[in-house]
Amino acid sequence: MAFTAADPDFESRVHASFARQGIMRLLGASITRVEPGAVDIDLPFRADLTQQHGYFHAGVTSTIADSAGGYAAYTLFPATSSVLTVEFKVNLVAPADGERLIARGRVKKHGRTLTICELEVAAVKDGRERACAYGLQTLIRLDAVADGPPG
Amino acid sequence: MAFTAADPDFESRVHASFARQGIMRLLGASITRVEPGAVDIDLPFRADLTQQHGYFHAGVTSTIADSAGGYAAYTLFPATSSVLTVEFKVNLVAPADGERLIARGRVKKHGRTLTICELEVAAVKDGRERACAYGLQTLIRLDAVADGPPG
Amino acid sequence: MAFTAADPDFESRVHASFARQGIMRLLGASITRVEPGAVDIDLPFRADLTQQHGYFHAGVTSTIADSAGGYAAYTLFPATSSVLTVEFKVNLVAPADGERLIARGRVKKHGRTLTICELEVAAVKDGRERACAYGLQTLIRLDAVADGPPG
Amino acid sequence: MAFTAADPDFESRVHASFARQGIMRLLGASITRVEPGAVDIDLPFRADLTQQHGYFHAGVTSTIADSAGGYAAYTLFPATSSVLTVEFKVNLVAPADGERLIARGRVKKHGRTLTICELEVAAVKDGRERACAYGLQTLIRLDAVADGPPG
Repeated sequence: MAFTAADPDFESRVHASFARQGIMRLLGASITRVEPGAVDIDLPFRADLTQQHGYFHAGVTSTIADSAGGYAAYTLFPATSSVLTVEFKVNLVAPADGERLIARGRVKKHGRTLTICELEVAAVKDGRERACAYGLQTLIRLDAVADGPPG
Repeated sequence: MAFTAADPDFESRVHASFARQGIMRLLGASITRVEPGAVDIDLPFRADLTQQHGYFHAGVTSTIADSAGGYAAYTLFPATSSVLTVEFKVNLVAPADGERLIARGRVKKHGRTLTICELEVAAVKDGRERACAYGLQTLIRLDAVADGPPG
Repeated sequence: MAFTAADPDFESRVHASFARQGIMRLLGASITRVEPGAVDIDLPFRADLTQQHGYFHAGVTSTIADSAGGYAAYTLFPATSSVLTVEFKVNLVAPADGERLIARGRVKKHGRTLTICELEVAAVKDGRERACAYGLQTLIRLDAVADGPPG
Repeated sequence: MAFTAADPDFESRVHASFARQGIMRLLGASITRVEPGAVDIDLPFRADLTQQHGYFHAGVTSTIADSAGGYAAYTLFPATSSVLTVEFKVNLVAPADGERLIARGRVKKHGRTLTICELEVAAVKDGRERACAYGLQTLIRLDAVADGPPG
């Protein structure tokens, strides 16, 4: 699927919003791809991102997947809007075991109010990628609310 | 629904496993209720847990919901087993805006292999609770894998 | 949760819309409860509603759950609007084995655009109810589209 | 993804099981593709398959999607096993408006106990396909239960 961004400044707008997500800094995540309808987020392993077996926690996997999908949708939104996650679902199909995770959000359907994204997270181990999560996500576009803190 | 724990030491087993989740310490989450089929997790607000509008990030909300449900299931498992999340789905029904979050995991169906939990997260603002997320989660019991890091 | 219906004629409006759903007649489903934010649908067993083991098919279970949730939301909508399912998720927690199914849709969060419902389906066997499915559903309110066939 | 079927008779096994699903006959659905990890189901429009606006009901869309995914998984199972849906989630991204639906189930991850499928349903209108639903599904393999009615 090929999408066109309505806002020519979509890339800097996405980077600016990502920089406002305190949790991304805390986790150590960075945004590595921003194209119309497609965003990737990269997250190196750290011992403080783990569940009880020492792998990335499913919630951490979901957090970067959620942001990847949210910003994939946001690339297609007008400059004055903002984006919120309505819901998402993830299947954790393999242990998130690796030196880093790559989360990929891809728009499947872009509507005026709602946008649907496909989410995929791969664990990179010894340089080899292996899918560890698949998801589907629903985003809503808010036209009356600018991106950034309220007030 | 009333459940009985097969393992009399379920409570200390859940606390020990929770203590192994590096991400819970990083976020500042604590486990505040451990009963057969029911676990609550508490998370105070911090600026480094936020999304772009300054509220708790949906992924953070989901992370504590996922652990609450996983441990709710784990209370009912035998001592020598471990638990993994197969999948979960969350609806973010209101901004996670408050001085803290409370995630509640409740077992709805306990099977030999699969257990299903209901998830609910409330934001506490000025001392008043308001639901901000509802979820459903599928967990699997692993009998051949002990809880804790591999090896 | 107690809801108030904005439209005093919500009950007849729901019944009229249900009567337009061709699939409900084909399956033999009837609507047995219509209250603000709550709708129940009843479906007697027939051999042509089954999956390969002779129980109700998961899709049939989901069909009446989807309509129960959709109409539970619709009770709270204005008279001139219509309702569409954005997405739903169901966990099939036990075989849908019984002489009939009861699907219950309950509104958990009612918003201006989106409404979230909890779904539950029970199989009634020898007069005893047993939950066979749990679900979560997102509905959207369409203000510019009247209920009924287009044109 | 390319899969190999362990059972050389997977195709006739899938057709035989599909023929036992009473609901498929009632709806008028037929199975049009059976390959390792991939099954398609076709459903011509009828007025008795509709929701209130005259399109295919979301539950009907979900029913054929669920069977397509279930049988996609079942192609990879041993001859003596059977398959059950654990859960699924669908996003209805456009009205299911057309002269027929095509549901495609594709295995994304095949495990010993659990298999994960991607679901897609397209509506064919004036000969042109348009996606109307995307889904994710979890299936479980039952080794102690043969396909077919109990007893």
